[in-house]
Amino acid sequence: MTMSHEIDPPALEILALNAFSGAGEGLPPDIAALVARRRRSFGAGSVLFYDVPLKIERAEGAVIHASDGRAYLDFYNNVPSVGHCHPKVVAAVREQVGRFNTHSRYLCDITQDYAEKLLATFPAPLSNLVMTCTGSESNDLALRIARSASGGIGFVVTRTAYHGNTAAVTEVSPSSYKRGAPPAHVRVVDPPDPAIYGNNLAQGFADAVAGAIAQMQADGIAFAGLLVDTIFSSDGVFADPPGFLAPAVEAARRAGGLFIADEVQPGFGRTGAGLWGFSRHGVVPDIVTMGKPMGNGYPVAGLVTRPELLDGFCAAFGYFNTFAASPVAAAAARAVLEAIEEDGLIANAARVGGHLKARLTHLAGRTPISAVRGAGLYLGVAFADETGPRADIASALINGLREEGILIGAAGQYGNVLKIRPPLCVTAEHADRLVDAMERLLVGR
Amino acid sequence: MTMSHEIDPPALEILALNAFSGAGEGLPPDIAALVARRRRSFGAGSVLFYDVPLKIERAEGAVIHASDGRAYLDFYNNVPSVGHCHPKVVAAVREQVGRFNTHSRYLCDITQDYAEKLLATFPAPLSNLVMTCTGSESNDLALRIARSASGGIGFVVTRTAYHGNTAAVTEVSPSSYKRGAPPAHVRVVDPPDPAIYGNNLAQGFADAVAGAIAQMQADGIAFAGLLVDTIFSSDGVFADPPGFLAPAVEAARRAGGLFIADEVQPGFGRTGAGLWGFSRHGVVPDIVTMGKPMGNGYPVAGLVTRPELLDGFCAAFGYFNTFAASPVAAAAARAVLEAIEEDGLIANAARVGGHLKARLTHLAGRTPISAVRGAGLYLGVAFADETGPRADIASALINGLREEGILIGAAGQYGNVLKIRPPLCVTAEHADRLVDAMERLLVGR
Repeated sequence: MTMSHEIDPPALEILALNAFSGAGEGLPPDIAALVARRRRSFGAGSVLFYDVPLKIERAEGAVIHASDGRAYLDFYNNVPSVGHCHPKVVAAVREQVGRFNTHSRYLCDITQDYAEKLLATFPAPLSNLVMTCTGSESNDLALRIARSASGGIGFVVTRTAYHGNTAAVTEVSPSSYKRGAPPAHVRVVDPPDPAIYGNNLAQGFADAVAGAIAQMQADGIAFAGLLVDTIFSSDGVFADPPGFLAPAVEAARRAGGLFIADEVQPGFGRTGAGLWGFSRHGVVPDIVTMGKPMGNGYPVAGLVTRPELLDGFCAAFGYFNTFAASPVAAAAARAVLEAIEEDGLIANAARVGGHLKARLTHLAGRTPISAVRGAGLYLGVAFADETGPRADIASALINGLREEGILIGAAGQYGNVLKIRPPLCVTAEHADRLVDAMERLLVGR
Repeated sequence: MTMSHEIDPPALEILALNAFSGAGEGLPPDIAALVARRRRSFGAGSVLFYDVPLKIERAEGAVIHASDGRAYLDFYNNVPSVGHCHPKVVAAVREQVGRFNTHSRYLCDITQDYAEKLLATFPAPLSNLVMTCTGSESNDLALRIARSASGGIGFVVTRTAYHGNTAAVTEVSPSSYKRGAPPAHVRVVDPPDPAIYGNNLAQGFADAVAGAIAQMQADGIAFAGLLVDTIFSSDGVFADPPGFLAPAVEAARRAGGLFIADEVQPGFGRTGAGLWGFSRHGVVPDIVTMGKPMGNGYPVAGLVTRPELLDGFCAAFGYFNTFAASPVAAAAARAVLEAIEEDGLIANAARVGGHLKARLTHLAGRTPISAVRGAGLYLGVAFADETGPRADIASALINGLREEGILIGAAGQYGNVLKIRPPLCVTAEHADRLVDAMERLLVGR
C-alpha cells in the first residue's frame, strides 16, 4: 500500500498496487498493524496515500490532525470544500439527521428550498435538477440523457480524463484503464495544453474535437456528446485563456451532440470566478454534473439540465435514486451554498489563489517548474526539463511536503503536475507556508 | 404527480408521470404550492407518492409525523431499517461528522472496525469488502467484477427485477424500461412463483435459468452470471421454500457464470433468519451486494466477494469511490449493525413477521387475497381472482390504508402485490393495526 506520491485515483492505483508487496517496512507498529488489517478486509481495493500512511484523528478548516501528533495543512482535499467540519454544515446535518431522513417521494421544504437556491445559480435554460449521491452517478445519468437526446452513443473526452467509477463512466475515463483502452464509442483528444496546440489553443482544441467526431462518424458510430471537466484537472489543470472552450462546444453541437460540463472538480466556487467552471468560458452547457464539494463530505451530487432533455429521458426510463434528495443531503448541501456566500469563499479563492499563483510563478524561474496553471484555488504546477516531464520531482516534493506538514497530490498524463486544491478557506499565510516549503525543497533554502 | 398507488420505483414512475397532468386538483393550498414548485425544479424527475402527497415533519421508530398533523404507521420504508432516527445511529453520525469526514485513502479505526464486523457475518470465502455509496453502485461494480472473472458479458435476471439506476444496472433491471426492453446480453426468466413452476419450484426455476443461459450462448453471447434479489421483492416477493435457489445457482456455475446475490432488499436481518437472504437458501454467492438499510438512511452501500475476484478486477481497472468508506458512513453503518444486535431485530422480524403472516393468511379466506408470501418482515400479499391479477384492489387498499394512517406500497409485474417491509422495530400491535385496517377495508368490518 505504500507509494511515493499521490496522483488522481486511477494512476494512483497502478502505482499503489505495484508497491503493495513491500508494505510494512519501517512503519510504526500501530500503523503497520492497521495496514495489515486493512489489506485483509479491503484486499486489492485498499489503496493508501504515502509511504507511511496517515491516520486521521480530527480535522477543522484547512488543517488535519493525525495520529502522529502533527497538524497537517491540507492542500489536497477538495471535498471538504468550505473547510473540514464547517460548523454550519455540521449543525445542519446534526439537526436534520435526528428529525427525519427519508427518500424523496414525500414533500420536503428543505429539499425544495435547496433546489431553488442551487438552480438560481445557473443560466436560465438549465432549470431542472436531478439529485444523485455521487459525481459518478451524475455523470452516468448525464451520458444516458445525452444519448437519449442525441440519438447517438459516442463521446469525446480528453486523454487523461477521469469522470467516475460506474461501468459506463469508466468507459469515458481513459485514466481508469490500467491495461486496454476505452471502447470504440469513446474517442480521446489531447487536453487543451498550450504546449500541444500552441498560440491558437481555442481553435486547435476545437479542431481536435471536430476531428475526433468526424473519425467516430466515419467509423459508423453516432455522436452523442462532448464531456469535459471544465478545468481539466486530471489532465494536469488547464484553465486559460478563459473562453478557449467555446469553439469546441460549438463543434460538438454542430455535429449534433450535447455538451456536458463536469463540474465535480471546478464547481462550487473553486475557480474564484463564480460558482461554475463553464462560466469562465462563456458557454452554457446542455448538462452540468456536480459532485465532491456539494455536501462538504456528505454524499450528495446531482445534475442540472434543460427540462425537455429530462422529459425525453424520463419518457423511456424510470429513474429513482433512494438516498438522493433526502432531507439530510439537502440540509448539508444548502449549508454549503450558504457557507460559500457567508464566508466569502469565491472571493477568497480568487485572492488567495491569485497570491499563490503569483508566488509560484515567481519561484518558477529558479526551479524545474515548467508551468504554473489554473484558476482560483485549482492550480497545477508542472515539472519538466530538457529530458521531458519530471514526475520524480513531483513525487519527491509530495513526500517532502508531507515531512513539512503539508498534504498535496499530483495529476497529469505523466504524473508530473503538482495539483493544488485546498479547502477554499485557506489563507494567504497558508499559501505562503506552502510556497516557502516548496522553495526550501526545490532550491534548498 | 398524483397517483393512486405505490409500486416499486420503475412501474411507479410510469403511473405517476401519467398522472401529472391532473396535479393540483383538490390539494390543500400549501401542498399544492409545494407540488408546483417541485414540478418546476425537478421536472419529469419529480415523482410523489399518493393522490395528496405527504409532507413529512419528523419520524421516529416506525412512525412518521406529517404536516397534516397525523402520525402514520410506516409499513413501507425499509431504508430506516432499525427505525426512523434510531438514537444510536443519530448519535454516531452527530459525533463523527464533527470530528472528520475524509475519503478512504487515509487510515481510519472506525472504517476498519466496521469492515471486520460486517465481514464476520459472511461465510469464509467472502472476505473482501468494497464500500460504495448506493446499492446501484454496488450492483454496477458487481456486474463488472463478474464480467472480469467470467470473461462473459451476459446476465440472467427475473422478469420484473430492479437492481438500480446506473446505465449498466438499468440494463439488468427490466422493470425500469417504460418502452423497449433490455439489450440482447440480458435474458429474463419468470420469477420463482409457484403459480408458474408448480410443485417443483426449485427445479423449474433452475431449468428456466439454464434455458436462458443456453439460448444466450446459442446467440453467441458469453454468459457472465445470474443476478437475483434473494427475496425477489420487485417480482412480488418469493421466499419459499427455503433452499429453492440452490439448483439455479448450480446451473449458473455449471455454465461458467457467477452468482450475484442482491441483498439490498432482504439484507440486514429483514427475513428474520439471519442477516442475509441467501443464507435461507443454503448457497454461498460469489458476490453479495448491499444497499438501502446499511446506514439507516446515510448513503452507504457495498459488496463483498472473494479476494481473487477483486484482484482480477483491480488488475485491469482503477476503482475509487470518493464518499465511500468515509468515517461518517462507517460510523452510521456500524451503529446499524449494533442496533440490529442490541435491539434483537432479527428475532423481532421473525416474531412480528410470523404473527403478521399468520393473521394475513387467516384473512385470505374471506377476501380476494390469492397468496400471502415472504419471510420475516418482507411479506407480499397478492390480490387476484378469476379475472386475473387485481392491481385495482392493491391500489384501493394502499389509498385506504393511508386514510387509516398506514403507509404501504405494491410490487409485482402486475402491481397487484401489497409489499410489506416496515422498519424492523415494528411491534405485534402495529401488525395488528395493519391487519385490522385491511380487514375493515376488504371485508367491511
